[in-house]
Amino acid sequence: MENITKVWVGKLPEDSPYVKPFRMYYVQNGVEKNWDLLKVHDSVAIVLYNTSRQKLVLVRQFRPAVYHGVITSEKGTFDKVDLAAFPPAIGVTLELCAGIVDKSKSWAEIAREEMVEECGYDVPVERIEQVMVYRSGVGSSGAKQAMYYCEVTDDDKANSGGGVGDELIEVVELSLDEGRQMVQQGAVNNSPPSCLMGLMWFFANKAPKSA
Amino acid sequence: MENITKVWVGKLPEDSPYVKPFRMYYVQNGVEKNWDLLKVHDSVAIVLYNTSRQKLVLVRQFRPAVYHGVITSEKGTFDKVDLAAFPPAIGVTLELCAGIVDKSKSWAEIAREEMVEECGYDVPVERIEQVMVYRSGVGSSGAKQAMYYCEVTDDDKANSGGGVGDELIEVVELSLDEGRQMVQQGAVNNSPPSCLMGLMWFFANKAPKSA
Repeated sequence: MENITKVWVGKLPEDSPYVKPFRMYYVQNGVEKNWDLLKVHDSVAIVLYNTSRQKLVLVRQFRPAVYHGVITSEKGTFDKVDLAAFPPAIGVTLELCAGIVDKSKSWAEIAREEMVEECGYDVPVERIEQVMVYRSGVGSSGAKQAMYYCEVTDDDKANSGGGVGDELIEVVELSLDEGRQMVQQGAVNNSPPSCLMGLMWFFANKAPKSA
Repeated sequence: MENITKVWVGKLPEDSPYVKPFRMYYVQNGVEKNWDLLKVHDSVAIVLYNTSRQKLVLVRQFRPAVYHGVITSEKGTFDKVDLAAFPPAIGVTLELCAGIVDKSKSWAEIAREEMVEECGYDVPVERIEQVMVYRSGVGSSGAKQAMYYCEVTDDDKANSGGGVGDELIEVVELSLDEGRQMVQQGAVNNSPPSCLMGLMWFFANKAPKSA
């Protein structure tokens, strides 16, 4: 799905709308300290469960930051990358439907729109439950994320999903067993902890007991 | 605990060892795209359970990135901050014992050292089980984190913890009920999703059934 043919890295432009790095200074117990951090957008994520077919609905996509992270974990920083040595598939993640909070709408409404755009399910906002609020990247960004839960049926499917503009997002349906495997001891996932947390919360609180 | 008397923000220096921002360019389906991201260190986190007293052992600390994130979520970017309007306590988090992978040692050994430094428990590495591996900050850093689990007793306590150097880390013991409250629906935590995930994994797999 990723179909990446070239990858290279350059300087962050001063006016990046996505990554705004800072050094924060503070005096703690009389000692001046500093911490390097960046502002990233707050976000929402949604645990989506299709009850018509007992499937968890997730999204798969190429994540440049993960691709970069996998390579630099192994060989340090780079300017150009050998795609044969590091196939782009190593940067493909499995995640909850999610999106950034960059509009002046309620967070639940943003979650609703992401469900339509990424996964194709169109439901009224009243059907979306808030699960939990927490802070991601406590060492680097401290952005807020709110997690939601929504049960959908095949009747709620309004389009095929896949994102808007030049987003390339693949909708993935997981059986309950496949979801459980992702959160088993020993699992190695190209997924964020929020996704694994959402799956665990689902299995502890919402999954059909008999399945 | 935080005792912060002044906070201000400046430019990220070019040579920051902690936050290295980049713009990554790539060609996908013939279209040139880019993504702004940063390299952060890979890390370990440990779910620590003291069986002598049936307590989960976590750490509390002032997190500059969270403090910055809370303020900018509300009022946008800032140069200097009014500590009365934004008390530093809003930047204090509750997290798993954790640390960055910046030494040429095994990841489990780094987890072992963090347990000693942050929480004061000194155990042989063989007693530390790997739980899961995943990618944090899939949109911004894609860093790898490995989660571990370790049961400790009061006999393993070698020092009072609290971090090394000028780290100010408070060791916090949670009862099982307090831990469960953190992962209940509706919870709002100044904690990262990895911490909540670790607690959920503990309750699903390790917590005493009768407690």
